[in-house]
Amino acid sequence: MTPASATEPAVGSRSLAHPARDEIRIESVLHALSDPVRLYIVRELAAAEAELTCSRFELPVTKSTTTHHFRVLRESGIVQQIYRGTAKMNGLRREDLEALFPGLLETVLEAANRQADRLDAS
Amino acid sequence: MTPASATEPAVGSRSLAHPARDEIRIESVLHALSDPVRLYIVRELAAAEAELTCSRFELPVTKSTTTHHFRVLRESGIVQQIYRGTAKMNGLRREDLEALFPGLLETVLEAANRQADRLDAS
Repeated sequence: MTPASATEPAVGSRSLAHPARDEIRIESVLHALSDPVRLYIVRELAAAEAELTCSRFELPVTKSTTTHHFRVLRESGIVQQIYRGTAKMNGLRREDLEALFPGLLETVLEAANRQADRLDAS
Repeated sequence: MTPASATEPAVGSRSLAHPARDEIRIESVLHALSDPVRLYIVRELAAAEAELTCSRFELPVTKSTTTHHFRVLRESGIVQQIYRGTAKMNGLRREDLEALFPGLLETVLEAANRQADRLDAS
């Protein structure tokens, strides 16, 4: 017989802390979205409509900076990070954000896409 | 005859630098809105639907911090600061923001108001 505690710590050490829905704050969400790299990540996750690994993103920053950006996105409540096997998968918390701040994510994404188009064209 | 240059510097020294509409960036706007004090200022300006002096806001920060927050709001393109006589008046750049990022300001304000109601109720 294996005691439950023999396996639980290992599982626990690989689950990451996320704010509950009612702990998510608009200020933290806006701050997380105010960085160009993080905004790019969120746009890509939204476009993919699927969970993606961190390594799927081609970012102009170091691996540790990438990890930092994903942590800010997770701690603000925008992104859910879950280990599946050895891969850390990232997905948008669309339902939570929509319940708290209706239309916010879509409006920001649309604004970011419009700006990208505008700057590409100039 | 008074040369134009005799009066212009004095006027110039009292006009503040603002980004032109096409210099406003979504990242800077989101960053400016991500601070609770600045978000409060923007909510008050939106509710007032008028230009207000900095001193009209009862903020839990020092005068120099207040000045800093208004500067961030001005430099991001959210607020227009204009001297009228000795008073520095602040107004939202609604038209510019709406043209660049349709619906963004209203959506953020609504999200902030919903959060304030939610936290007041709990």
